[in-house]
Amino acid sequence: MKAFYAEEQKRHDPNAFLSSGAQQPNPEKPERVERLLSGAKAAGCTIERPRDYGLGPIAAVHTPEYLDFLEHIFTRWQRIEGASAEVIPNIHPIARNGSYPASAVGQAGYHMADTACPISGETWASALWSAWSAVEAAEAVMAGAPAAYALCRPPGHHAFADVAGGFCFINNSAVAAQTLRRQSARVAILDVDLHHGNGTQGIFYARPDVLTVSLHADPVRFYPFFWGHADERGEGAGLGYNLNLPLARKPGMPRSSKCWMWRSSASVPLRRKRLWWRSALTPSKAIRSAGYR
Amino acid sequence: MKAFYAEEQKRHDPNAFLSSGAQQPNPEKPERVERLLSGAKAAGCTIERPRDYGLGPIAAVHTPEYLDFLEHIFTRWQRIEGASAEVIPNIHPIARNGSYPASAVGQAGYHMADTACPISGETWASALWSAWSAVEAAEAVMAGAPAAYALCRPPGHHAFADVAGGFCFINNSAVAAQTLRRQSARVAILDVDLHHGNGTQGIFYARPDVLTVSLHADPVRFYPFFWGHADERGEGAGLGYNLNLPLARKPGMPRSSKCWMWRSSASVPLRRKRLWWRSALTPSKAIRSAGYR
Repeated sequence: MKAFYAEEQKRHDPNAFLSSGAQQPNPEKPERVERLLSGAKAAGCTIERPRDYGLGPIAAVHTPEYLDFLEHIFTRWQRIEGASAEVIPNIHPIARNGSYPASAVGQAGYHMADTACPISGETWASALWSAWSAVEAAEAVMAGAPAAYALCRPPGHHAFADVAGGFCFINNSAVAAQTLRRQSARVAILDVDLHHGNGTQGIFYARPDVLTVSLHADPVRFYPFFWGHADERGEGAGLGYNLNLPLARKPGMPRSSKCWMWRSSASVPLRRKRLWWRSALTPSKAIRSAGYR
Repeated sequence: MKAFYAEEQKRHDPNAFLSSGAQQPNPEKPERVERLLSGAKAAGCTIERPRDYGLGPIAAVHTPEYLDFLEHIFTRWQRIEGASAEVIPNIHPIARNGSYPASAVGQAGYHMADTACPISGETWASALWSAWSAVEAAEAVMAGAPAAYALCRPPGHHAFADVAGGFCFINNSAVAAQTLRRQSARVAILDVDLHHGNGTQGIFYARPDVLTVSLHADPVRFYPFFWGHADERGEGAGLGYNLNLPLARKPGMPRSSKCWMWRSSASVPLRRKRLWWRSALTPSKAIRSAGYR
C-alpha cells in the first residue's frame, strides 16, 4: 500500500502546553513521525512524498479567516510585549457569539479552543504538508488504489472549520473526505482514537454526504469534555449522519496528558475503495467499511 | 454618603494570571481595597458592613450550576494530579454549544471565559461579600438614601450569568440592579471603565427593564475583544436597551495588563434615587442620571 508523508511535517515542534491549568512538556513531538514511518514500512508500505496542492482543498473545509490566522499569527504574536514564545490563547468568545476581533490575542481566543495547540514558527508549514499527505492519499484512491495511508502529523481531528484544538490545526481527514466527494456521492470517516473527533464532527454536523463515526473514551470526564456524547447525532440535513460510540474508561487506561500518543483516525470512502490514515503510534490494522453505502 | 464593605472581601488573593499566553503577577490585589477605602473616607463616606443576604439576590442573575461551580471548584481542583495551584481554564466550548461537562477541567472551561480570573480557596467568600455590599447599597437607596456607595472587590462587570472573566466572578452591579427592580420598574447601569462591561451587557441583553450603558476603550484591539462595539444594541425585547460608547485609545494610555487598576462602574436607579459603586482606584465623581426615565 502507498503511504504519503513529507519531511516538512516534522518541523512543527512546540515546547509546552497547558493541562489542568499547569504548563507541561508537549507530547506531540516530531519523533512520533519516526515511529509511524517504522510501522508503515514494517506493514509493507512504500513511502511517497505528496505534491503541493495549495490552499484549494484545505479552504474547502476551513474558513479564510482561520487559514489567514494560522499562517500569520506566530509573526504577529512576536510583536506583543511580554507575550509567550508560542501562541497560546487566554480569552475566548465562549458560546456568546461575540464579534470577530482584530487583535492577535483576540483572534487566538477566537480560533483556538484550548491551550493544547500551541503555534510556533513552523506550525503552518507542517500543517500544510500534513493536509497535503491526506489529499494525496485521497487522490491515489480515486486513481484506482484499493487503499492508501496518509501519515498526518500534526494530527487533525480536533480542528473545527475555524478553530484549532488538541494539537490539531488543519483537519486532515475532513480535507481528504471533501476531496473524495469529487468522485463519491457519500463518504464515511471512521475515527478510532482515545479522544472524540470533535472537530471532524463539527465540520460535517449538518451534512448528510459525509458520515462521521467516532469511537472514543466517554467524554463525560475526559477531553474534549463538551462533545462526543451518544446523543450528538447531527443536525438539519445531517441529522443521523453523526454517530458517537463513547466507551467506558477502565482502570489503568492512560490519563489525558499521555493519551495523545494513541491518536488514530481512519476514513473509509464508499464503492469498496478504502482510504485510511493514521496520525498515531498504534499498529496499523484494517478497519472495514462501516456498513454505510 | 453611606459606603458598604466587608473585611472578607480582602481574602481573595490570586497569585498569577495568563496575559498574551504568558504568566504574569495578578494586579487585582487586596491592597486595592485600602486605596478605595481611603478615597471613600476622604470623600466623606461612612463605612458600614453589609449583612449576609444569602444566595437569593445573587441567584437572581446567576445560574445554579455556575454558583455551585464557584463555591466548590477550588476544592475539586486540588484532587487533579499535576493541576495548577489556582483554577485556570484550558479548554472552552468556544461558541459550539457543547453539552455541560461533569469534570472540573471541563467546567472550568465552561464557566471561565479567560485566564484572568484565577480562583483560589478564598475567592468564593470574597465574591459573596462583594455582592452583598452591592445588595446593601441597593437596599439603602430603596430605604430612602439619595445615594450609596458599594466598595465591590472582587469586581464584577466581566462576569456573565454563568461565566467568570477578567478578575470578575459575581456581577455586583447586575445583582444590585436586580435588587432595585423590586422598587423600580426600570433601572439603569452606567459602567465607566477602561474595559467594556461585557458580563453586565450579557446578563441584561434581552431585557428592556435594565438599561446597560458602557463607556470604555474601543475593544477592536483591546480586552474584552469580542464585545463592546457600538452595534451591540440588545436583542429581542431588549433591543435598544444596551448602549456601548467605545472611545478611541490615545498614545500613552495604559496597556491591558495595567488597566485593571482603573476599573469603575456605576448604577443609576430611576426616580432620582441614585446608587453608585466603584471597584477601582479612580477618584469618586458624581455620575448624573443618564437621562433614562
